[in-house]
Amino acid sequence: MQFEVTILGSNGAVAAYERYPSSQALHYNGQTFLIDCGEGTQFRMNKFGIRPGRLDHIFISHLHGDHYFGLAGLLTTFNLNWRQQPLHVYAPRGLEEIIKLQFTYADTKLKFDLHFHPIDTAAHAVIYEDEHLTVETIPLVHRIPTAGFLFREKKLLRKIIAEKMAEYQIPYAQIPLIRQGSDFVTSDGNVIPNSELTTDPTPARSYAYCSDTLYTESILDIIQHVDLLYHETTFSQLHEARATETFHTTTTQAATLALKAGVKKLLIGHFSARYEDLNALLAECRSIFPNTYLAEEGATFIVGEAISEIAVHP
Amino acid sequence: MQFEVTILGSNGAVAAYERYPSSQALHYNGQTFLIDCGEGTQFRMNKFGIRPGRLDHIFISHLHGDHYFGLAGLLTTFNLNWRQQPLHVYAPRGLEEIIKLQFTYADTKLKFDLHFHPIDTAAHAVIYEDEHLTVETIPLVHRIPTAGFLFREKKLLRKIIAEKMAEYQIPYAQIPLIRQGSDFVTSDGNVIPNSELTTDPTPARSYAYCSDTLYTESILDIIQHVDLLYHETTFSQLHEARATETFHTTTTQAATLALKAGVKKLLIGHFSARYEDLNALLAECRSIFPNTYLAEEGATFIVGEAISEIAVHP
Repeated sequence: MQFEVTILGSNGAVAAYERYPSSQALHYNGQTFLIDCGEGTQFRMNKFGIRPGRLDHIFISHLHGDHYFGLAGLLTTFNLNWRQQPLHVYAPRGLEEIIKLQFTYADTKLKFDLHFHPIDTAAHAVIYEDEHLTVETIPLVHRIPTAGFLFREKKLLRKIIAEKMAEYQIPYAQIPLIRQGSDFVTSDGNVIPNSELTTDPTPARSYAYCSDTLYTESILDIIQHVDLLYHETTFSQLHEARATETFHTTTTQAATLALKAGVKKLLIGHFSARYEDLNALLAECRSIFPNTYLAEEGATFIVGEAISEIAVHP
Repeated sequence: MQFEVTILGSNGAVAAYERYPSSQALHYNGQTFLIDCGEGTQFRMNKFGIRPGRLDHIFISHLHGDHYFGLAGLLTTFNLNWRQQPLHVYAPRGLEEIIKLQFTYADTKLKFDLHFHPIDTAAHAVIYEDEHLTVETIPLVHRIPTAGFLFREKKLLRKIIAEKMAEYQIPYAQIPLIRQGSDFVTSDGNVIPNSELTTDPTPARSYAYCSDTLYTESILDIIQHVDLLYHETTFSQLHEARATETFHTTTTQAATLALKAGVKKLLIGHFSARYEDLNALLAECRSIFPNTYLAEEGATFIVGEAISEIAVHP
């Protein structure tokens, strides 16, 4: 099952060096979820081939402009392109008021249903759920109410051992139950334990997005053991004072958090415009947490592929 | 005196083919005036080297997003870059309310004074004036209140004939009066007529920006004889019905207007995303008004240079 993240915008508040404000497209099993929507997100969706027809859910971490100033334009373009399918936006309180005011003055009448779901950024709660995935808020510590998002695959079903199906002549209708862990009872009453019929399922995968935030260990429980952690690293460890002052995180802090949480892989982004070359930031992280990668525009990361770099630049 | 227009965004509401929403930077004598500010304007200002320190006045034609969704991001970036000089925004009523709401939720405290000047889009009025220039509104006909802008150089001073200054031993202090048209009286009471001392001034130049609008001859009086007319041509003449329905203008209509107004040069833009190749649109205009040019991103047009193409691509 596809579970990938494409970076649409990697920079902090001020764009620089062809790096743009925050936005990511998470692809799961043919669906796309947009995480943050900085200015120009719609242009980079075009550039990197993100298909609007697959996007029904948008998650906004907080109401600093570099995380949502692209939303009104994206919605307007969807409308001009005759979108009809409903769209859901999960965001801190206030975004609906802003977008509606903009649409009032523009006299924009949407051709599709737009549903705003206000989130409580102070709570760790499930805010989205479907057959395969849940999305939970991650309370972050920033200058205004801010939440990260944890995309967690639901527990997958056990894997059938094909030869056993034949050996015990198990009816097709029984398979879903067996994949859920049931034993099988033969026609003569013998109980075949599930462990003989199946192997463990593929482990459920998870992706955590944490931006923007002060370094905080309060999120360790939530992000523990995730396959891929995106954590903001606005500043180098050399500028820790500035990070603290502006409620942001340094490279060393993000890497330490990744280590303490036992995540498999760390992705860093939301870089300050003061850094042209990002390799020093990467090196600072890798000295603590080697499996760290730069979130660069256009790169795609497969969630669950923990060891090797699998960034793909279109 | 420098009087140039750099195109930052040339397209209609939906970006396409590396063409972006409306924005132009008008340079006059070291100052820059921004006209419209579609999404991503700040990125293209960077790209084309537009210096924020020279920009104190922004003119917004109307509150459709493709003409102003870049403003909040631009202002935020100015603030993050420690701007201190005041900034003036001339726009239809409503923009101040929108920007202030966004800044309230972002908890943004501006470090510079931001002055909104609401404009009456139904009136033809002077909304800006300095030593050299005036800016007048051009009432347009669109789905929501919309005004174009006429940048008109003030009447320039007469040109001194250097030899005459020596011949009549004219004191330096008299020159400003003579440039304004005064005669000179010699020490023995002879009156030297101004016409003997000066030649006619360089003609005052003018630039008119008209977007978005239905074809309307009501603006002919205002734009008459301008050196450079930017007029939207969202549609080819082949799609005239669609233009009328959406309150936009076709190529043929814009060229006809340029002809009737006796302008020196026509610049076309705000192209629909349906047109990948713009040469057909250009040809349609030139068949009626030969001195027509495409407003392409990064091109700079010198106001008053009427004959030859002087677009400069950085």
